[in-house]
Amino acid sequence: MPRTLEYFFDYVSPYSYLADAQLPGLLARTGAELVCRPMLLGGLMSETGNSPPATVPAKGRYMTTDLARWVDRYELPFAFNPHFPAKTITALRASLVALEEDPEGFVALKRALFRAVWVDKVDPGDPSSLKSVIDAAGLDADHLLARCAEPEIKARLKANTEEAAARGAFGAPTFFVGDQMFFGNDRLDFVEAALR
Amino acid sequence: MPRTLEYFFDYVSPYSYLADAQLPGLLARTGAELVCRPMLLGGLMSETGNSPPATVPAKGRYMTTDLARWVDRYELPFAFNPHFPAKTITALRASLVALEEDPEGFVALKRALFRAVWVDKVDPGDPSSLKSVIDAAGLDADHLLARCAEPEIKARLKANTEEAAARGAFGAPTFFVGDQMFFGNDRLDFVEAALR
Repeated sequence: MPRTLEYFFDYVSPYSYLADAQLPGLLARTGAELVCRPMLLGGLMSETGNSPPATVPAKGRYMTTDLARWVDRYELPFAFNPHFPAKTITALRASLVALEEDPEGFVALKRALFRAVWVDKVDPGDPSSLKSVIDAAGLDADHLLARCAEPEIKARLKANTEEAAARGAFGAPTFFVGDQMFFGNDRLDFVEAALR
Repeated sequence: MPRTLEYFFDYVSPYSYLADAQLPGLLARTGAELVCRPMLLGGLMSETGNSPPATVPAKGRYMTTDLARWVDRYELPFAFNPHFPAKTITALRASLVALEEDPEGFVALKRALFRAVWVDKVDPGDPSSLKSVIDAAGLDADHLLARCAEPEIKARLKANTEEAAARGAFGAPTFFVGDQMFFGNDRLDFVEAALR
């Protein structure tokens, strides 16, 4: 039976972007099954009393340097998003709709949204920009965005966020292998060891 | 000419203990010259507006798990210090005295203090415990501790801490290769790359 890797993320998190690009290789090497749990990072931080790194100016400055090193190591395209911290709540809700209706479409949408935010400097909080990204990923943006208004979809994002908090998460990306929690792209080697 | 690795640390920091144990190998592989800069982590956090991880309870809980994983990977002895966050100011000042008078003795003292705090659960803020650790490391504790009261030694620790803050540090361990800064034992591979 393949082991399960639970993945809590938010498009607003550049370290989630870094981690996301490593997952295909990790899944291929381990045979693990990925369970994606979009969550609202801002909500998680509020619930846990955590603050974004840039709340401490020196941490914010170092993050820029640190991100550049990871991007270089991973050989990824990257541009810091000028709208950071952008509003990702609708993008996350749309992702939950896709996850429910069309898991393959969800994968395409997740990649497209991470790329839009962390390569193409798109503001995911801008409705027409978000619609363009969803359409370009080959999904039905009007349909997805209409469903984002459903109370059940809103509640699902809230539930993912609250579950992450209840299980000990305080940031993104956060991974679980059973009840073992791992925070950050820089712990993916520990994740991989746990999956073997 | 060998490149220089500057190393800002405090015995109170378990991640400094983890990093410290990796330095002999890194120095052997790179031929770099280590410059040790004891600093007061609490002072650095005050200056930069940073807070200890455990200020966020979920972060504090995760730190315990994370430390256990690193200890396992590095194959190090480890016990969380029951006096954490212990007062390390005198231990740091004594280290600065040793660094000035007897660089080899300093290396022995640094190892002994990290081991005392993070393996043997010693309270470095307790004067008689500190004296025992210094004596056991083969240094003259009475002499070192007497010099800790000198304004020049106190000023040196303050200057190291202020310089770390001025150069962008916000935690420990922090490494510099020229003006490139690296935070944490988990960035030592980036440090090593910068030294090559």
